[in-house]
Amino acid sequence: MSNRDAQQDFRLLLEELYRERTLRFFKAGQSIPLRNQEIWIVYRGLVQLATLQPSGDEALLGLAGSLMPLGRSLTLLEPYHAVALTNVDLLRLTTEEIHSSPRLARELTEQMARRLRQAEALLALAGKRLVIDRLQGFLYLLAHEFGHPTGEGIRIDVRLTHQQFANALGTTRVTVTRFLGELKYRGLIEIGADRRIYLKEPQRLAAASCF
Amino acid sequence: MSNRDAQQDFRLLLEELYRERTLRFFKAGQSIPLRNQEIWIVYRGLVQLATLQPSGDEALLGLAGSLMPLGRSLTLLEPYHAVALTNVDLLRLTTEEIHSSPRLARELTEQMARRLRQAEALLALAGKRLVIDRLQGFLYLLAHEFGHPTGEGIRIDVRLTHQQFANALGTTRVTVTRFLGELKYRGLIEIGADRRIYLKEPQRLAAASCF
Repeated sequence: MSNRDAQQDFRLLLEELYRERTLRFFKAGQSIPLRNQEIWIVYRGLVQLATLQPSGDEALLGLAGSLMPLGRSLTLLEPYHAVALTNVDLLRLTTEEIHSSPRLARELTEQMARRLRQAEALLALAGKRLVIDRLQGFLYLLAHEFGHPTGEGIRIDVRLTHQQFANALGTTRVTVTRFLGELKYRGLIEIGADRRIYLKEPQRLAAASCF
Repeated sequence: MSNRDAQQDFRLLLEELYRERTLRFFKAGQSIPLRNQEIWIVYRGLVQLATLQPSGDEALLGLAGSLMPLGRSLTLLEPYHAVALTNVDLLRLTTEEIHSSPRLARELTEQMARRLRQAEALLALAGKRLVIDRLQGFLYLLAHEFGHPTGEGIRIDVRLTHQQFANALGTTRVTVTRFLGELKYRGLIEIGADRRIYLKEPQRLAAASCF
């Protein structure tokens, strides 16, 4: 079953199980409260997961998009911040509910695997010595997870600031700006009028990574 | 439910479902073949998951211990190596089997979460500037996942070579040896006669990390 079919199945199940439950809305930039014994499912939008290093730097741990789970029970880290990157709608589930519904658990297994694959990919990127390689791999990962094919190339449906790129890649904002410019100059990406990034040659970006 | 109870439940379920299935044995050092549509469950022992950077360095992506799943469908990365760190017994499941057994899927959700938590923790460590901080956090993580309390402190039941520590932490073998010596001198760890590492003051190690 394809990723997209699995997501569709999960969405239908959630609608069936939680028809009466209200989604919680958070505006872009808002912190999302995390409580024990609760898991949020991203219904719409994108959530950034991060921790704060003792140095004061923020380290990106993941981006939770459509139907991905997040919650305190899914991390060992402290502090652990979940922040809405875009406007988001979230569905709240309790660990009890998950444990008592085998169908829910089954769908959740696949969504957990998506988060695991992403975390592993970020780990592989973190091990790269050159920032330009990390940036290329990160763009490819974003396109893989949150991209849509268009006539202009794959459009990344996530708008991150250069500072957010810098936090994700362990570098500075200035360096991100410089290397995005370089990738644009080399014809690998384009920045749309909507400030979204388009990947013109995803395979060349992938080749620079471990994907 | 505690981690250990969850593992016990899962083990009983596997024994019930797959009583007749033979476990596959791999000797320490052997590569574990990964095929599409298959997932290995670690029944005994420890498996290292890694990728090779274009620089030739190996990047550690995870350590799969008791009941943790691994497989090609759980990663986006290529190359992706699974190597037995100790002698291991593995149980082979097909994705079809998992999808058709809600009970299996439910237990697997928790084991997937364990891998996700570990990958996130490794990501947080990778973001630390100082190798000594990364090493302290890594020891704490190993103790958390593969440790047993003893009269001498928490014993880490995983024996990694200094080179394996170096790969995990993005540093050199010499640096690992030096900092392990420093932690020993400061009374934070001890190396047993069996070459296993004992954590004497886990809370002080945790404080140096984000745990």
